[in-house]
Amino acid sequence: MSSHTALVVLEHVGIFVFAISGALTAIQKGFDAVGILVLAEVTALGGGVLRDLIIGDNPPAAFRQTTYLLVPLGAATVAFFAHPVVARLNFTMLLFDAAGLGLFCVTGTLKALDFGLGSVQAALLGVTTAVGGGLLRDIIARDTPILMQKDTDLYSIPAMVGTAALAAADRLELPMAVAAPVAAVFVFTFRVAAMLRHWTAPQAWTRPRDRHSS
Amino acid sequence: MSSHTALVVLEHVGIFVFAISGALTAIQKGFDAVGILVLAEVTALGGGVLRDLIIGDNPPAAFRQTTYLLVPLGAATVAFFAHPVVARLNFTMLLFDAAGLGLFCVTGTLKALDFGLGSVQAALLGVTTAVGGGLLRDIIARDTPILMQKDTDLYSIPAMVGTAALAAADRLELPMAVAAPVAAVFVFTFRVAAMLRHWTAPQAWTRPRDRHSS
Amino acid sequence: MSSHTALVVLEHVGIFVFAISGALTAIQKGFDAVGILVLAEVTALGGGVLRDLIIGDNPPAAFRQTTYLLVPLGAATVAFFAHPVVARLNFTMLLFDAAGLGLFCVTGTLKALDFGLGSVQAALLGVTTAVGGGLLRDIIARDTPILMQKDTDLYSIPAMVGTAALAAADRLELPMAVAAPVAAVFVFTFRVAAMLRHWTAPQAWTRPRDRHSS
Repeated sequence: MSSHTALVVLEHVGIFVFAISGALTAIQKGFDAVGILVLAEVTALGGGVLRDLIIGDNPPAAFRQTTYLLVPLGAATVAFFAHPVVARLNFTMLLFDAAGLGLFCVTGTLKALDFGLGSVQAALLGVTTAVGGGLLRDIIARDTPILMQKDTDLYSIPAMVGTAALAAADRLELPMAVAAPVAAVFVFTFRVAAMLRHWTAPQAWTRPRDRHSS
Repeated sequence: MSSHTALVVLEHVGIFVFAISGALTAIQKGFDAVGILVLAEVTALGGGVLRDLIIGDNPPAAFRQTTYLLVPLGAATVAFFAHPVVARLNFTMLLFDAAGLGLFCVTGTLKALDFGLGSVQAALLGVTTAVGGGLLRDIIARDTPILMQKDTDLYSIPAMVGTAALAAADRLELPMAVAAPVAAVFVFTFRVAAMLRHWTAPQAWTRPRDRHSS
Repeated sequence: MSSHTALVVLEHVGIFVFAISGALTAIQKGFDAVGILVLAEVTALGGGVLRDLIIGDNPPAAFRQTTYLLVPLGAATVAFFAHPVVARLNFTMLLFDAAGLGLFCVTGTLKALDFGLGSVQAALLGVTTAVGGGLLRDIIARDTPILMQKDTDLYSIPAMVGTAALAAADRLELPMAVAAPVAAVFVFTFRVAAMLRHWTAPQAWTRPRDRHSS
């Protein structure tokens, strides 16, 4: 299998797992079959669509290749019939989700650099690609966005560090064929470590003597 | 009246009715005059704007012809002063809304095909045109999106079936002058039947013996 | 200091203040550091990004100059450590916010006119530039959008009147070098007066004898 084929396979696996997370959210909320499908599609593809709208790649990649739309449909169908089984695979799904996070961080950053955006902007769009779909899922499902909820395991911060490092490597003209997979594996590992160790981001700083009043 | 004029008139009627639904939502929520106007505009035009952003037609059609912006302003004004009367016309409004649904499904699908998108993508964007404004309305008004709420009469599914059939007709090179009105009437009829018969979309499948625990 | 430098400085001050409002909202909601940063960026830049997506200026201005992204990062950092102090400066912040409102109304309207949009559309996009970020902030934070909440001091209406007057001045070919600062000062003054006098927008009209039943 060539590295390009491997990348395409990985991308579809990432889309599938993100779609499952959208479908399961819809099922938990008691949404109907339409809601399950819509949340699966939006969660899986929303981040990439946001990135492409911003960089001006119209129509977005998600609207140019039919498999991008069909994989979430498949995921929604699986979740529709087998959600108790899927929900029990929670840790496995979280591992695949972490892989998707690492992958989309990297592909998003590289695409933005390709379109001529600056390093900071490309890193931000890499993060957007990876977490934007989940943010849209939470907005539509009327949940507090999980990426900003206190006391949740780090998710965006691994993405931010990884995309920043990748954009820096690009600035330093390091070979992307090495830097890109390293960044993806770094984001994946950091995210999995955060899950296992329950690392969380801090809330706003409060002086010790203010704490009683809050 | 030429068929083009008829189409333009119908389109403005559809925008008016969608805008009324946005304005009434704002009034039910106790929003002020600004909220009534914003929800009227977003509900009426949001689906088409999403479609045009995705296909890359900038500025979106809603920003190229002033009547598109003025009709929701008129609807907001009518709703502001006459909302008890308008709310009593509920069934009439739902009939017009179904007509708007059929019309926007068709115009959205055809526009996406014109811009060179594939059949599946064009069908999806037809649905987006028709239901996207209502989704944005519900997000801003902080309601569970009606298109994914359980136990509500089918709305998106008639749209999906109609746009899929229209995109298939395009693939088969059937004459659009026939297929387009047939698809619009089909969506309208399917939606009205769903309202009268209270057809609903299923929730996620549960094995009979799981049901007590849920 | 040239007038161009003054404008750039003012713009960054406006972005800073809008970002502070996003960061404080996130802190009030108990979001973590990621949430504080995301809401700061979205509130400060969201309106301009929406405008640029609609007029087709890709990538949006916010993604072309790094200072636009760094100023909200600075604001988020300040709010993170000093939020009790910042919250106590409430009235000062509201004054700066009113200045940002006036400024972004004008820059948004002028940019839309530059891109060839009509008067009504340019006025609408001026308002979008000024209030769009706050609307996105409220959607993500799951608040009723403050711009449509009843019994809140006028915010969008000064923006609407100011951008409409500026677009009319452009139609009448009045010199923009005069009309633009006048419109900005007008919006600022109208907004501050609305705050001091607690002017509010009306809710939907009800006949006196209907009022008891509502």
